[in-house]
Amino acid sequence: MNDDTKGVHPSIKIIPLGGLEHIGMNITVFEYEDEIIVVDCGLSFPTEDMLGIDLVIPDVTYLKENRNKIKGFFITHGHEDHIGALPYILKEVNVPVFATMLTMGLIERKLKEHKILDTVDRSIVDFGNVVKVGSISVEFIKTNHSIVDAAALAIYSPAGVIIHTGDFKVDYTPVFGDAIDLQRFAELGKKGVLALLCDSTNAERPGFTPSEKTLGRVFDNIFHEHENRRILVATFASNVDRVQQIINTAHSYGRKVAVEGRSMINIINTAMELGRLSMPENTLIDVDEILNYPNEKTVIITTGSQGESMAALSRMASGTHRKIKITPMDTVIFSSHPIPGNETAITKVINDLQLKGAEVVFHDTHVSGHACKEEIKLIYSLTQPKYAVPVHGEFKHLKAQEAIARELGMASENIIILHSGQILSLSDERAEIIGDAPAGEIYVDGLGVGDVGSSVMRERQILGADGIVVVTLVIDSYSGEYLAGPTITSRGFVYMKDAEDLLEEATALAYEKLEKLRGQGVSDWGRLKGALKDTLGDYFRKKTKREPMILSVFEEV
Amino acid sequence: MNDDTKGVHPSIKIIPLGGLEHIGMNITVFEYEDEIIVVDCGLSFPTEDMLGIDLVIPDVTYLKENRNKIKGFFITHGHEDHIGALPYILKEVNVPVFATMLTMGLIERKLKEHKILDTVDRSIVDFGNVVKVGSISVEFIKTNHSIVDAAALAIYSPAGVIIHTGDFKVDYTPVFGDAIDLQRFAELGKKGVLALLCDSTNAERPGFTPSEKTLGRVFDNIFHEHENRRILVATFASNVDRVQQIINTAHSYGRKVAVEGRSMINIINTAMELGRLSMPENTLIDVDEILNYPNEKTVIITTGSQGESMAALSRMASGTHRKIKITPMDTVIFSSHPIPGNETAITKVINDLQLKGAEVVFHDTHVSGHACKEEIKLIYSLTQPKYAVPVHGEFKHLKAQEAIARELGMASENIIILHSGQILSLSDERAEIIGDAPAGEIYVDGLGVGDVGSSVMRERQILGADGIVVVTLVIDSYSGEYLAGPTITSRGFVYMKDAEDLLEEATALAYEKLEKLRGQGVSDWGRLKGALKDTLGDYFRKKTKREPMILSVFEEV
Repeated sequence: MNDDTKGVHPSIKIIPLGGLEHIGMNITVFEYEDEIIVVDCGLSFPTEDMLGIDLVIPDVTYLKENRNKIKGFFITHGHEDHIGALPYILKEVNVPVFATMLTMGLIERKLKEHKILDTVDRSIVDFGNVVKVGSISVEFIKTNHSIVDAAALAIYSPAGVIIHTGDFKVDYTPVFGDAIDLQRFAELGKKGVLALLCDSTNAERPGFTPSEKTLGRVFDNIFHEHENRRILVATFASNVDRVQQIINTAHSYGRKVAVEGRSMINIINTAMELGRLSMPENTLIDVDEILNYPNEKTVIITTGSQGESMAALSRMASGTHRKIKITPMDTVIFSSHPIPGNETAITKVINDLQLKGAEVVFHDTHVSGHACKEEIKLIYSLTQPKYAVPVHGEFKHLKAQEAIARELGMASENIIILHSGQILSLSDERAEIIGDAPAGEIYVDGLGVGDVGSSVMRERQILGADGIVVVTLVIDSYSGEYLAGPTITSRGFVYMKDAEDLLEEATALAYEKLEKLRGQGVSDWGRLKGALKDTLGDYFRKKTKREPMILSVFEEV
Repeated sequence: MNDDTKGVHPSIKIIPLGGLEHIGMNITVFEYEDEIIVVDCGLSFPTEDMLGIDLVIPDVTYLKENRNKIKGFFITHGHEDHIGALPYILKEVNVPVFATMLTMGLIERKLKEHKILDTVDRSIVDFGNVVKVGSISVEFIKTNHSIVDAAALAIYSPAGVIIHTGDFKVDYTPVFGDAIDLQRFAELGKKGVLALLCDSTNAERPGFTPSEKTLGRVFDNIFHEHENRRILVATFASNVDRVQQIINTAHSYGRKVAVEGRSMINIINTAMELGRLSMPENTLIDVDEILNYPNEKTVIITTGSQGESMAALSRMASGTHRKIKITPMDTVIFSSHPIPGNETAITKVINDLQLKGAEVVFHDTHVSGHACKEEIKLIYSLTQPKYAVPVHGEFKHLKAQEAIARELGMASENIIILHSGQILSLSDERAEIIGDAPAGEIYVDGLGVGDVGSSVMRERQILGADGIVVVTLVIDSYSGEYLAGPTITSRGFVYMKDAEDLLEEATALAYEKLEKLRGQGVSDWGRLKGALKDTLGDYFRKKTKREPMILSVFEEV
């Protein structure tokens, strides 16, 4: 089998270390002989059951084990699920990073925050340019997405050409820059594409995603209908085109624009510096100046479209924002869709805004940044790949793309749905899963990376659901007598003041059990603690139907 | 003002104790002089931040304070958000319960579980019948909803007629029983309706909700397309009509039906006993028998359409169901919509089912049980109320109904959006909010009702997010010397084995601080514990950016 890599049918390995089976944490390894390139290095956000976790990054054991082979990270675009893990991973595997301009601008902001900007080798790549690293070359191809400067990658290797679309849509009339370079996809297809790794996010949706530009008219109409009111627009901070359109409409209505929310301010500044966002003169004002202008002459662009509890819009809605008070003179536009899992939080913000009298507009004010079925068909038809490896999405999205590829006539053995960590070996002769690399999720909690694992998480889940009962006991180290305690203290279990009887009875039970064991000559702390856990666990389960954590702490004097 | 109630313009009070500002926990008080009736008594399910909570029930302090006035509970239909709190509340306020047949059947199951069936006075009311209690009478009017035997209530009092729709839709071709009694609504409207309390759940949706019957053909088609496969259908246990249609289609395709999931089995049994569900002979089989039949001859109707982790379908999807294994020969139909907040859990189940090779059908396999805009307009047009009080929904839904009522020409001062607890006084002359009754949420956790309040919940949130650090110290009661400790133990904070340095340094810091205080003659436990909390809190925040709960336990010997 090893012959393949050097024989007439050279093969390349594709190893997704994340990005499959869930949305986010995109990172894929391409390995040809002793050379590796990595596409994207994203994070994902914690799910509901990951208590206390801030971010999730991929397990890159495979990269650490093959550190010397790695030629660089090639980043498709600047969204968190494609760049967010970079500063963490670069600290362990410091290799060059290649990306387009805005993408690199956003990466650099992160590296600066992590104080590693100076130690990382970075190259900005223009669309159409090819980066050669050893026997692999990578071309950046213009695409469209909900962030400017998104790229697909054509990866050239002796095994063949692989196209990775990144996240993309087909926008014939983009707000900034060119439309997706369909001709280049066609040209590559004509020459022969070994494999297509295509975005699956919207593969369940029929039709064609509308152009970002269609929202320009939507904003014009809403601004027209709400001429006499202050307007707030919440959207994704990174959607620079969206922000541009809001600014354009605001300007045409003679309104000043204030920007609120740290990530929104940061990204707008970066985009302006890099010429990706143009601000008409005398339009931008500081949020502190907003009250100097009449309501109908201002627009506030803000973060918080996902109902994030600490974001600017949520604070406005709950009345805790220091500078902006919502009034019945406000119209709030949600220019976003709910990311799955955020629905209830968003609904809460909408209700809170309405309770303060604001009008809230949240229908037909967003277009997706991902390709729907017909766009996916277009890319397949242009590139005509030998193999299809659907990426970016949960399993159901990958299955939906598989159905599209089959509809287009691809043989099902040429469509390969991978799980994270699987090692796919591809040659023009055969596709084969030849093994597994370590893959998984690493939790970031505060300053800790990876120190919260499954056992700590399990503890948090028990603590969060039913609280804790702490039993303390002081033991005479000579006689083995109990000098003080057992004392029972609880947190998050019952309201202690109202549960005196329960806790007193529990204390008596614990004492009785300990005395009995002492009478039997049991002095082993492990056994004593185990007995307390069982006795109290049973008692509390019977009395309350709850299962608090039971922690015994013994002190010897 | 008091004159109103006895004067030429007698007034009635309407007090929603729940059901506004959120979905669920519906309960509304109607009070005329010294007589009270209560419509519905529902629960709501805990939101994400209510850690460890099983259910939420309304605060009925107002009912307890006015116990002697209450003539009965009048229940519109048998969904949890309308009957779920009854067993809890009846234990405190035992008054007669009035409901239609299936509704009462479901209530009785609950009362039996709570062992209070014998102590509660219950009356089954037929549609069109009027229950007279003192000077208030209540008529049960046939409606349609996603459960059989749903009723609207016409509440007659000297102040006028109030119509409460309950949850409803207009279904001209219901699966079981009659269509909504539109003539009766019209008749009442003709005579004069003081107020309409109308379901707002779908008030944001344009058009008309399709008939439940439209799904019969949908099932026929899906069964036809999947003739050679086993079929599983997940739906809401209480949607008896839906279950009936699945059974009908199964029967017509010669398939046996097995039922899985405790609530599904219970409700189907209750519905069959009461003649609300008809099962063709030789159709129902036990789930244990399922393997005696070929795949293409069986259908499994199951709970779990909301992705509930302990429900039957979730266990099948995760491979932990004892009796049913999912295979590539299975087609799973989700005949349901995601209740907001459940999206990610449902998606997980869909992905897991697909990972096991099953085909999953989840588009266009459900119709709502609630009235859309045009249906709401119809009810307003038939009843022509003087006042509108939108009910059942979050604030945004109530606002959407307000917009409909205004579109129909109602004066905005006659449309009253209430908050839970507000006391609305209505007469044919005036509508006025005259005060507030206590209203709120009571948490049920295991056997505890109301013992988990905001302080315990706050503790759970801290424990869940960052864990706990327990500091124990043994003090000599004579000398004040520290005999043992401080000892630091943590749970859910860091992985203790990998955090030895951190915890050792923390212990040293705690010791130092305690010694310093002792040197200063400080022996007050409160001050010592406060100092430990500050010292360790600061230290951990700096070192980990986490804020665990810090609990000091001192023992004196």
